[in-house]
Amino acid sequence: MDTRIAIIGTGMTHFGELWGVSPRQLASDAVSQAVVDAGLTKKDIQGIFVANMLSGMLGLQGHLGALFAEELGIQVPAYTVEGACASGGLALHTAMMSIASGKYDTVLVLGVEKMTDHSPEEVSSALMGAGSNEERLAGATFPGLYALLAKSHMQKFGTTERHLASVAVKNHFHASLNPKAQFQKSIPIETILKSPLVADPLKLLDCSPVTDGAAAVILQRKKTSTSSHCVEICASQIATDTLGLANRSSLLELRATRYAAHAAYIEAGITPKEIDIVELHDCFTIAEILAIEDCGFTEKGEAGKMIEKGMFTLGSAKRTVVNSSGGLKACGHPVGATGVKQIVELADQLRGRCGKRQVKHAHIGMAHNVGGSGATAVVHIVKSV
Amino acid sequence: MDTRIAIIGTGMTHFGELWGVSPRQLASDAVSQAVVDAGLTKKDIQGIFVANMLSGMLGLQGHLGALFAEELGIQVPAYTVEGACASGGLALHTAMMSIASGKYDTVLVLGVEKMTDHSPEEVSSALMGAGSNEERLAGATFPGLYALLAKSHMQKFGTTERHLASVAVKNHFHASLNPKAQFQKSIPIETILKSPLVADPLKLLDCSPVTDGAAAVILQRKKTSTSSHCVEICASQIATDTLGLANRSSLLELRATRYAAHAAYIEAGITPKEIDIVELHDCFTIAEILAIEDCGFTEKGEAGKMIEKGMFTLGSAKRTVVNSSGGLKACGHPVGATGVKQIVELADQLRGRCGKRQVKHAHIGMAHNVGGSGATAVVHIVKSV
Repeated sequence: MDTRIAIIGTGMTHFGELWGVSPRQLASDAVSQAVVDAGLTKKDIQGIFVANMLSGMLGLQGHLGALFAEELGIQVPAYTVEGACASGGLALHTAMMSIASGKYDTVLVLGVEKMTDHSPEEVSSALMGAGSNEERLAGATFPGLYALLAKSHMQKFGTTERHLASVAVKNHFHASLNPKAQFQKSIPIETILKSPLVADPLKLLDCSPVTDGAAAVILQRKKTSTSSHCVEICASQIATDTLGLANRSSLLELRATRYAAHAAYIEAGITPKEIDIVELHDCFTIAEILAIEDCGFTEKGEAGKMIEKGMFTLGSAKRTVVNSSGGLKACGHPVGATGVKQIVELADQLRGRCGKRQVKHAHIGMAHNVGGSGATAVVHIVKSV
Repeated sequence: MDTRIAIIGTGMTHFGELWGVSPRQLASDAVSQAVVDAGLTKKDIQGIFVANMLSGMLGLQGHLGALFAEELGIQVPAYTVEGACASGGLALHTAMMSIASGKYDTVLVLGVEKMTDHSPEEVSSALMGAGSNEERLAGATFPGLYALLAKSHMQKFGTTERHLASVAVKNHFHASLNPKAQFQKSIPIETILKSPLVADPLKLLDCSPVTDGAAAVILQRKKTSTSSHCVEICASQIATDTLGLANRSSLLELRATRYAAHAAYIEAGITPKEIDIVELHDCFTIAEILAIEDCGFTEKGEAGKMIEKGMFTLGSAKRTVVNSSGGLKACGHPVGATGVKQIVELADQLRGRCGKRQVKHAHIGMAHNVGGSGATAVVHIVKSV
C-alpha cells in the first residue's frame, strides 16, 4: 500500500476483571479517549472497524459494527473483522486498506472484548472455536497446544522452565509500571516456577489471563493529517498457516509469524535491529520465545537464554524492549482487543507518553498479533514522524 | 474507489437442507466452480474474504478465514467479515477495498452458512444476535420485527396481505426456473395467504427459509483481467442505522437502504430506471416491498400494488426484474452467504448463463443486502463489459 497512514489518536480502558462495565461502555470509553487525543469530534470518523472474537461465540451479540456505530451516535459504514485473537491486528490492517483504497480519510479501529462475565469453561470452549476440529474433538485447549510447542522447543534447543518463567518475570515487571495493566506487580521467578501446573511445562503464571477491555486507534490518510506528533504505519502484513498443529511441518516455529514479519521488514525497508520496541503476542511464555525468534530478534533457540539474562527488558541497554506494556501476560488479553492495544502502546511509546515504563529514544516499533496457535499472524511496523 | 474491478468467476452450491454436506465441503464446492469459471488455479488467489454470520454464534467454529485458506490448500492472507445477514455484501465491499488499496490483484470472496444442523430455536436465538438488546430481552424475533414494519406500511399506504403474498408468488415463480434454488416450485397466492400465521400479518410463506449453502466470487483488478466475458462492479456502498426499530424516526422505510442505494447511484452515475435486474434482500415479503421503494424503483407505498400487477416479474415487459434467482424467499437464505449469492446471480445473468430464468438484454444489475432489521445495508451495482 503506497498511501501514508498516520495514527492520530489512541485510547484504551483499564484492562482487568471489569464486572461492572458493559461492552458498550468499554468501547465508548476507549473511543472517547482516542477522539479527544486526535483532536477530532466523532463526526470526523468516516468508517468503523470493530475487532472482536467472542461476543458471537459466547452467544451474545453479533453485528457489532452497526452496534458501535449506534453507540457512537454516528451512522457511518461499520465493519466487524474476525481472526480469532488476531482480530485486532486484522481489523487495523483492513482499516488501512480502506484508507489506501481511497474510500475513507479518517477511520476508527476499535477492539473490544468482555470475557469475565462467563465461566472459565465457557470461555475455554469458545476460545477453542479458533482451533481445528480435530483439536477440539480431542479435548485440547490452547494451554495444551502451546505446551506441545514448549516441549518441542525444550527438547530441541534445551529451553528450560526457568527460561519460560523469565518471560513472565519481565512482563510482570513492565506491567508493574503500567497503570492500565491487569496485574500491576512484579512477581519473583520462584513464585512463577512454583505456580500450579496447567499443561506441562506451562504453569498458571506462564499463561495470559482472561481479561475485559477495549482499545481504540484513529487512523488518518497522511496528507490530511493535522497532527504534528503523529505516528506512521510503515508496514502491515498478514500470513496464515494451518489451524491445527498436526498439519504443520515444524513445531519449533510459528511459520505465519515468520512470513508476516519477513514481509513487514521488506515493506518498511528495515531490519529487526532497527526496532526499538515490540509488542508481541505472549499468550503463553513460550509464545514470546517463539515470536522473538520467528521475528528475527535472535537466532532460533536463543530467545529463552537471552530473556533470562535480562535482555528485552526495560532499561537493559541498547536492545529492543519487548512488551513494555506488560504484554498479554501481565497487561492482560481481552482477545479481540489485544491487537489494537498493541498499537496503542506503540503509538504512546513513540510519543513519549508512557511515564515510568517509557522506552527512551523509541522511534520504531513493531506489533505482532497471533490468532489461534499461529494460524493467523499479523505484523505492523510503526515509526514516529 | 477509482480502481476498476471485475468479477471473473462465480460459483455456488445448491441451496437447501443439505444434511450430508459439511461447511468445508460447501465452501470447497463453491470455490472450485468459481476458480474454474475464472480460468485460474487456486494458487492465483492472493487473499480470501470469508462472509459468515452464525458459525461462531452457534458455538461452532471461528477463525474461518484461516480455516478456508487451509481448506483451499493455499496459505494466503484471510479475513472474516461479519455484518449479520449483510456479511456477504460487506465481505465483497471489503475485498474490493483490498484490491483498490493496491494490496492484491485477485481475491476470493466466499460466503458460507450451515443452518439446518441446529434446532429452529437455536437458529432463531442466534439470528437475534443481530438485533438490539432491548428487542432480544423483549423476546422479539425477526419475523416479529418485520411484522411491525409490515403493519406500519399497511396502515400508512393501504398495503394488503395480498400485496405481500404477491412477492412470494413472484419469487417462487422465479425459483421454479432456478435449478439451485431451495424451493423450485410456483406457489398459488391462495396457498400463501392460507399458510400458518407466524407474526401477524406475516405468514409462513411470507418468510425466507432456513438454508445451507455457499457462494463464491473471484474479483480481479481490471487491468490484469484476462477474461473478455467479465462483469465490472461500478458501485459499492454501505450505510448503517440503529440496531433496534425503537430508535428509528420512521418504520416506513429502511433508511440505511435508502442512503446506500442513493450513494451507489451517484458512484455508478446511473438512475434506478437503467437497472435491468435487482437481487434484493427479501428476508420477508415486506422487506422486498420496502427495498423496492427505498431503492427508488417506485414511489413510496406503491411497490405492493405494482408487484400484484405482475411488475418486476420475469418476462413482464421492459421493467426491472427483481430477484430472478428466487430471492432469499425461494432460492433460500443461508444468511452469511446471501450477499455473495446475489452477486453470483447478477454476474451469471449479465453473462447470459441463467437458462430458463435468463433476463433478456440484461446489462446493469444491482444487489441489495441487509443486516438485521436494516442496521446495515450494502448496495452493489454491476455492469457487463
